[in-house]
Amino acid sequence: MTRDWIALDWTTTRRRLWVMRGRDVLDETVDDGPRPADPAATLALVAGRHQGQGVPVVACGPLGPVRAPIPCTPLAGGLWRIDLGDPRIAFHAVAGLRQELPADMMQGDETRIAGFLALNPGWDGVICLTGETSRWVHVSAGEVVSFRSFLSGALVSALGAGTMLGRWLATPELDRATFSEAVADGLSRPEQVLARLWSAHAAATLDGLPPEMARARILGTLIGAELAATRPFWLGQQLAVMGEGVMPRLHVDALAAQGAPAIEADAPRMTREGLIAAWTALAA
Amino acid sequence: MTRDWIALDWTTTRRRLWVMRGRDVLDETVDDGPRPADPAATLALVAGRHQGQGVPVVACGPLGPVRAPIPCTPLAGGLWRIDLGDPRIAFHAVAGLRQELPADMMQGDETRIAGFLALNPGWDGVICLTGETSRWVHVSAGEVVSFRSFLSGALVSALGAGTMLGRWLATPELDRATFSEAVADGLSRPEQVLARLWSAHAAATLDGLPPEMARARILGTLIGAELAATRPFWLGQQLAVMGEGVMPRLHVDALAAQGAPAIEADAPRMTREGLIAAWTALAA
Repeated sequence: MTRDWIALDWTTTRRRLWVMRGRDVLDETVDDGPRPADPAATLALVAGRHQGQGVPVVACGPLGPVRAPIPCTPLAGGLWRIDLGDPRIAFHAVAGLRQELPADMMQGDETRIAGFLALNPGWDGVICLTGETSRWVHVSAGEVVSFRSFLSGALVSALGAGTMLGRWLATPELDRATFSEAVADGLSRPEQVLARLWSAHAAATLDGLPPEMARARILGTLIGAELAATRPFWLGQQLAVMGEGVMPRLHVDALAAQGAPAIEADAPRMTREGLIAAWTALAA
Repeated sequence: MTRDWIALDWTTTRRRLWVMRGRDVLDETVDDGPRPADPAATLALVAGRHQGQGVPVVACGPLGPVRAPIPCTPLAGGLWRIDLGDPRIAFHAVAGLRQELPADMMQGDETRIAGFLALNPGWDGVICLTGETSRWVHVSAGEVVSFRSFLSGALVSALGAGTMLGRWLATPELDRATFSEAVADGLSRPEQVLARLWSAHAAATLDGLPPEMARARILGTLIGAELAATRPFWLGQQLAVMGEGVMPRLHVDALAAQGAPAIEADAPRMTREGLIAAWTALAA
C-alpha cells in the first residue's frame, strides 16, 4: 500500500489526476475542457506518461459498460481492467452502479460517495451530487439504496452555449434575492420551467432586468424545479451536497430556504478518498 | 400595389425570401443555417441584390427594438424603416409585439398571425407557433389578447448539439406509441421533466431502448410539460398550430390525444400573407 499509483477522476468536462504514494498526494494536475474525442488514446497518454515509474492507474468516470445493480455498497462493482493496447499499462476503472426502475446509472459518483462514507462512517441520508447531472442518492447502512438523476447541469451548459440565454448565463454575478424567489417559484410551479426560462430572457431584453438577476432567475427556476421533483429525497433527511463550481452552493442555499439544512462536502477530496478506498481493496 | 417588392422572413435559423409582384410570388429562395453574425451586412446584401430593380423590402423577425403593447391587432406596430447604410435601400421591418405581465415579446410571429387572420377572417381561438420558442397566442376579435412563450424549440436544439441526448435526437425516426406515453407522462408529472430527459438516455444506454423510442420520450416529455403549462390556453378553445419541421405535427398529435383537435396551418404561407398585409398597408 505504500508504492506509487495514479488516481484519476475522469469526467465529461474535466480530468483530475493525482500522483499518489499510498494515501499521500505527491502531485495533482487538472485538465479542464471537453472530453477528448478519443478517450482510449488520451488514457493511454496519461498512463504512459507515468510508465517510467511503472505505476498502475485507478480511475473513475464514464469509462466503460460495467455497472453493479443497487442496492449495494458504492464500490460493490469492484475494479476492472481496461486494455489500452499496451500490456505494460495497468489501468483500472471503478465499476459504476445501475438502477432498474426508473432506469438510471452513475459512473464516477459511486466513487465520491465511497469517499464521503470513508470519511463519515455510519452516515445515513441523501447525497446530492452536482455536475453534468444532478444526482440525488439515498444512502443507508453504507449502501446506495436508490437514486435519481436530473439533466440540470448539462442543460445549463447547453443553454449557455446554444441559446439566447447564453448572454445571461455568462454573467459571473448572481443576485441572491432573485435566486431565492426563482427557487420558490420553480418549486411551486415546476410545470412553468420552460416558460420561466424564456421569460427571464424577455424581462432582461424588454425591461432591463440586470444580467445578474436574469442568471439568478434561470438557475433558480431550474434548481427549484429539481427540488420539486426530489422532495421525497430531501424532506426530513440528513443531507450532503457535493460538486464543483457554483452549483453545490446554490443547492445548499435553495435547500436551506426550504428548511432543509445540508452540509457541503469537497468533491475532489471525496473522489480521491473513494479512489484510495478502491486502490486499497485492489492492493490488499 | 402591383409593383415589385421583396418579402423576407428573417428567423434565427432560416431566411426565406420571396420576390413579389403585388400579391404574386415571382421567385422564392430559402437560406438555412444559423443567423449571420452581422445581420445588417447580410440584410444589405439581400436588399442590394435587388437594387437593380430598385425594389423595397418588407421583412419580419428579430430585427430591432420596436414592439407594440398588446392587446392590439397583430400589425398594430406598423412598419419601420431600417437604415442599412445605403440610402437607396428601402428596408422596412414589421414591428413586434410586447406583453407587460408576464414579460414577453414576439418578433415574426405577429406577421404569421396577421397572415392567418387575413386568410381566416373572424377566427377566434389560440394559435400555437413552434420554432425557437413555442408561443401560445390567444386571438380574439382580430386582436392578440395574451400570449406565453416556452423555450422548447431552442432547448431541443441545444440538447441535441451540446449534451449526451444528441445521439437520440439525431435519429430521424420517432416511435408514435412511445411519444403518446411520454406526452401523457409529461402532462401529469411536469416537474419530472429534467429527470425524464436523463432517464430516456439511461434507458437507451442500459436497456437498449431503440433510438426512435428515446427520441420520442425526449420530445414527448417536453411537449407534455408544455401542454401542462398551457392548459388554460388550449382547454376548450379553437386551436391552430403552425411552424416548420416536425414540431407542429407533434403538437397537433399531442393535443388530439388530450381531446383538443387543432388545425395545422402552413407557416411559410401565413408569413407571406402577413407580409403582404403589411406591404399593402405601406403601399396604400
